[in-house]
Amino acid sequence: MDKAQLFKAITEKKSFLCIGLDTDIKRIPSHLLSEEDPIFAFNKEIIDATSDLCVAYKPNTAFYESMGAKGWESLQKTLEYIPKEIFTIADAKRGDIGNTSTLYARAFFEEMKFDAVTVAPYMGSDSVKPFLGYDDKWVILLALTSNQGNIDFQLLETKSGNRVFEEVLLKSKEWADTNTLMYVVGATNAAYIVRIRQLVPEHFLLVPGVGAQGGDLKAISKEGMNDQCGLLVNASRSIIYASKEKDFAERARDEAAKIQGEMSQLLDEYLP
Amino acid sequence: MDKAQLFKAITEKKSFLCIGLDTDIKRIPSHLLSEEDPIFAFNKEIIDATSDLCVAYKPNTAFYESMGAKGWESLQKTLEYIPKEIFTIADAKRGDIGNTSTLYARAFFEEMKFDAVTVAPYMGSDSVKPFLGYDDKWVILLALTSNQGNIDFQLLETKSGNRVFEEVLLKSKEWADTNTLMYVVGATNAAYIVRIRQLVPEHFLLVPGVGAQGGDLKAISKEGMNDQCGLLVNASRSIIYASKEKDFAERARDEAAKIQGEMSQLLDEYLP
Repeated sequence: MDKAQLFKAITEKKSFLCIGLDTDIKRIPSHLLSEEDPIFAFNKEIIDATSDLCVAYKPNTAFYESMGAKGWESLQKTLEYIPKEIFTIADAKRGDIGNTSTLYARAFFEEMKFDAVTVAPYMGSDSVKPFLGYDDKWVILLALTSNQGNIDFQLLETKSGNRVFEEVLLKSKEWADTNTLMYVVGATNAAYIVRIRQLVPEHFLLVPGVGAQGGDLKAISKEGMNDQCGLLVNASRSIIYASKEKDFAERARDEAAKIQGEMSQLLDEYLP
Repeated sequence: MDKAQLFKAITEKKSFLCIGLDTDIKRIPSHLLSEEDPIFAFNKEIIDATSDLCVAYKPNTAFYESMGAKGWESLQKTLEYIPKEIFTIADAKRGDIGNTSTLYARAFFEEMKFDAVTVAPYMGSDSVKPFLGYDDKWVILLALTSNQGNIDFQLLETKSGNRVFEEVLLKSKEWADTNTLMYVVGATNAAYIVRIRQLVPEHFLLVPGVGAQGGDLKAISKEGMNDQCGLLVNASRSIIYASKEKDFAERARDEAAKIQGEMSQLLDEYLP
């Protein structure tokens, strides 16, 4: 899926919502625990209830790995169940020496057929480039994350006057075009989005941190939207755990619909 | 396993060798491909042939993930097969928001029972701390890696005059003691080891990049050894792929023995 196709999906659905499938066995409704694969059973109902309201799903691999080999199977089944026209992101935050990143790319793009994978920049260009060698596949590079710890290294000022996350943007945008590379930009740092748009005006940004983490959708849209929307805004826990009862999928749909309704208005207001 | 126990193993075996189990289905001897689990069959023979020569094994998770759920099973079986007195490192380079890092910690320390996991520092303190909440378990934080891309961000000079990897050392050493935290320091940057020992004199360093990546064992030992050795030096491909024939385990043993012999001399020479 390229940038134009993603933008088409956004305008058709009037939504730039990404739903995080951070499915924790300890938090799903108890009636699902008797299912053969409770994690997949939960995801299946969430997908059925929300797939017309979002343009992307983003399973975070930690939740599946914490279940061992069985979790990896639940992830594979979930990915196969997601309708083909919806963008899929492995939130894996991988990154290793080139030889090894090649294997991670093989895992997420060839074995599992995700459209995109999140990658950590610390190890530099040769750790990221193996993920960039696929047609129609995306790297979503961590730039400025939504957690408090972003202050420790991402916000350090370098001798050139740029902060470390700005150096990540400036260097990495030379490694690929805007049909292959996006950035993770935390919504809890809306004040930085103006600066980020100066540095990468054309790139899509994946914005986590709206919802449970407290980011502001309107501010993000006002400062971050470009002429192809250029935003995927993620919500996870506020949607998928809206209820712990049998009505969890219905309530998840209500939450997703609320956000999609806001997004529809924001697209009307801010899309150039 | 704490620092004293690790040092005891090093002095008993006269070795600070860590063997990287970076087992790639495309590189193992062809006669193993008819086994039910070729990856585990390969690892089992390597472990049998080398476990008296090394103090640690380090499977890189990328190689197992690239095989899907089956690969995850091979990893679990490998870990269970490693003798209990040998230190085990999941080379996973994980790191995510706190909520999610907690699940990675659960995966590697509780589900799989590794002694240590490598963690990427980019997301800062709250992404690392969930891994630090276990007795007798270790975080091995990326500081200065062995690949060319280390120049992109790790070696950037900050306004304070420190490079980014030095900031990683200075900040993170406040998060835990030297029985819980080690650092990854690439052997291809031996020149930096003097500086690193100024900043973290007491910590163990995991040094990849000796062997296939070309690091210098003698220089590393001279500059990096402290009074509890303080070094785990990793070799992967040069040992496990020493031969592609039926004698692969025997040849792996020869390679490991060669390095262990050098290490025995270096311990005599440089251990204070």
